[in-house]
Amino acid sequence: MTSPVRLALLGCGTVGQEVVRLLHEQGTDLAARIGAPLEIAGIAVRRLGRDRGDLPIDPTLFTTDALGLIKRDDVDVVIEVVGGIEPARSWLVEALRAGKSVVTANKALLAEDGVALHDAAAEGGGDLYYEASVAGAIPLLRPLRESLHGDRINRVTGIVNGTTNFILSAMDATGAGFAEALEEATELGYAEADPTADVEGFDAAAKAAILASLAFHTRVGAADVHREGITEVTAADVASAQAMGCTIKLLCIAARGVDPAGRETVSVRVHPAMIPRSHPLASVGDAFNAVFVEADAAGELMFYGRGAGGAPTASAVLGDVVAVARNRLAGVRAASESAYADLAVRPMGEALTRYHVSLDVADRPGVLAAVAGVFARHDVSIATVRQGSAGGSPGRDGDAELVIVTHVAPDAALAATVGELRGLDIVRSVTSVLRVEGGV
Amino acid sequence: MTSPVRLALLGCGTVGQEVVRLLHEQGTDLAARIGAPLEIAGIAVRRLGRDRGDLPIDPTLFTTDALGLIKRDDVDVVIEVVGGIEPARSWLVEALRAGKSVVTANKALLAEDGVALHDAAAEGGGDLYYEASVAGAIPLLRPLRESLHGDRINRVTGIVNGTTNFILSAMDATGAGFAEALEEATELGYAEADPTADVEGFDAAAKAAILASLAFHTRVGAADVHREGITEVTAADVASAQAMGCTIKLLCIAARGVDPAGRETVSVRVHPAMIPRSHPLASVGDAFNAVFVEADAAGELMFYGRGAGGAPTASAVLGDVVAVARNRLAGVRAASESAYADLAVRPMGEALTRYHVSLDVADRPGVLAAVAGVFARHDVSIATVRQGSAGGSPGRDGDAELVIVTHVAPDAALAATVGELRGLDIVRSVTSVLRVEGGV
Repeated sequence: MTSPVRLALLGCGTVGQEVVRLLHEQGTDLAARIGAPLEIAGIAVRRLGRDRGDLPIDPTLFTTDALGLIKRDDVDVVIEVVGGIEPARSWLVEALRAGKSVVTANKALLAEDGVALHDAAAEGGGDLYYEASVAGAIPLLRPLRESLHGDRINRVTGIVNGTTNFILSAMDATGAGFAEALEEATELGYAEADPTADVEGFDAAAKAAILASLAFHTRVGAADVHREGITEVTAADVASAQAMGCTIKLLCIAARGVDPAGRETVSVRVHPAMIPRSHPLASVGDAFNAVFVEADAAGELMFYGRGAGGAPTASAVLGDVVAVARNRLAGVRAASESAYADLAVRPMGEALTRYHVSLDVADRPGVLAAVAGVFARHDVSIATVRQGSAGGSPGRDGDAELVIVTHVAPDAALAATVGELRGLDIVRSVTSVLRVEGGV
Repeated sequence: MTSPVRLALLGCGTVGQEVVRLLHEQGTDLAARIGAPLEIAGIAVRRLGRDRGDLPIDPTLFTTDALGLIKRDDVDVVIEVVGGIEPARSWLVEALRAGKSVVTANKALLAEDGVALHDAAAEGGGDLYYEASVAGAIPLLRPLRESLHGDRINRVTGIVNGTTNFILSAMDATGAGFAEALEEATELGYAEADPTADVEGFDAAAKAAILASLAFHTRVGAADVHREGITEVTAADVASAQAMGCTIKLLCIAARGVDPAGRETVSVRVHPAMIPRSHPLASVGDAFNAVFVEADAAGELMFYGRGAGGAPTASAVLGDVVAVARNRLAGVRAASESAYADLAVRPMGEALTRYHVSLDVADRPGVLAAVAGVFARHDVSIATVRQGSAGGSPGRDGDAELVIVTHVAPDAALAATVGELRGLDIVRSVTSVLRVEGGV
């Protein structure tokens, strides 16, 4: 048999341990698929001697010298499951420049400085694969990178963060507030001790940048993504959504557009939004992920599965390892980054969105006219108005509720409208403001 | 710029015309993605001068001499969208042997004689791609062929025929019988004038063979697939399913197993089955397709989208064209067929299934015991029994309804049980027999 393809594994946490386990259990199959066995040359960890259960691996393979391991001549492929920007970036740039192939699950690094990695890969001539960086086990990047290359993708809408989806699903199911649902998620292991990266949308924004880059053949970085988390979503928002036949999801949305000068643009954003229960993404519950793609010829596609966890992420990592190992044996390289389109990133204020606004207003004649006047002044067209009573029966001096859903308008105009409504005399309070997606 | 990659298009029906249109509209993008322009060298059709609308193509490119076109030295890639076994097989074998790359949507040919094509591709050194052959625009084969190669797939369950899904969805929504729903499908263009290939399950069986081959790294042909169509699904079956909180879908199921001798096997089947409404496949309506994949590490994945139609199929074809064109420019070849596992195909009688059986029985003491005895004699364990009245209030000499759902058992034992029930004195009629999938 051909001599083995040798792997350096950087990191041995939940994902790394699953990678080791799968390599052990499925070694024969993987070798048959590749045409050569895979062999672990070394595993770089922060501390030796830590308990890693009954991992089926020779303990002498562990080392704390990651850079030394990467530089070894007998290492062909570097697998990085450490996360974070540094030292991961230096390690991977070093590996790629030396001509090694890299498989990484590091969404933060790819979104922050993907250019450094792509450039190093081009210089060294190895492959850079990162299927596990977005939506875990769901085969998503390869379809975007390859299958849909004969088509024109117009929009990608995804639920790409399992923690926030678990929290929002719980709020929807039980009526709980954000804090309570977060507590439950933490207890069940769906949220980390410091949940900031998830609940503030940083994780989803990094994935959005990667998806947008691939879908639109352009470079989008984390800084290009408008980001809002779910910490301000209230039980009242959830109830408002339910009253509209909707549910609230943290969506990442990447969409093509044309700016006033006629140039093609891309807008990329992460924020909570109401979507109708009939939308395919609405039934994506718990910690599952799903990505909805709209393309010119293909129409609507959806990819669904587990977005996180040791085994699902390791499945995606190993799929990439098989591909890059095959490429090395064949002496070839996958197509490199496709960023020819070089689209301008449109600022959030110019993105076209729709708002759902609930107002607690004075219940007296002329209120609707005054409110509608504010929308009109900002050139925002109203799609529906629902009038109800807020907290008790409406009376001459009581409160009333106005629920307004707009048509599509520039986000800045919508935000300005809400700002002006807040200052209006007759508006007691703005009880809920949510963007609306998916054709309510 | 690099000299063009030249294409021979075989067939110019609905899909072929969309391929021409997309090549025209997205030519600049495709060239940027590939690194060279695509150029149509010729289009083989049965009859010249037929009206093909306002197709943006030089009419002198049409020819009736397909073989002559294929053999031309200036043709690099052959796209086949003709369908059927011959002459498509001879053409593609000729093209592949001559070292050209082939992109085909021909599921019937791949399932009937995929070996001939794979062998010819290996001989000539070109690529053989066929994403469009299963589930139209849904990127499915590439994920199976590549993304999941680091994992072990255990089961693939799919809705892969849009015509039958449209018919069954209509029966479920309106209570119509098969004939009536078929008529509607024909009127709306979802069913062909001769609907045999769809409603008898031949189309789904060909796709099942292709999916099973890729998922399990083995060779499965159309003849290995157990096939039952939907022509015998009645309004009563649909009502029975609804009473159980289920819906009926034509499923293709490919599953790993182990035979009594301990050898790994694969069983592949196409038949209508009840699935619970909570199953992700249950909400796949109209002519949409979806494929549900269960893998060791990845867990549950689902792929959803349009399974047929000119534009969606053309999207998949062009995605393949971009890939093979890139490979040709790089002087490389994609990984060839992976069939190392060489699993035995298990006969349907040994496949493990569950049955839902509705019986119209005499309403008198001892009936349930007698019926249960038949199941016991065949070693079939009963999961649930529901007793109701069939067509009127139950009385001493009236009829009663028994609805029985079994646990998993070999299909042959289940079929034999039903056969014996039909002969039983106290059984007036067996009103519905359906397999049950998806954990009812």
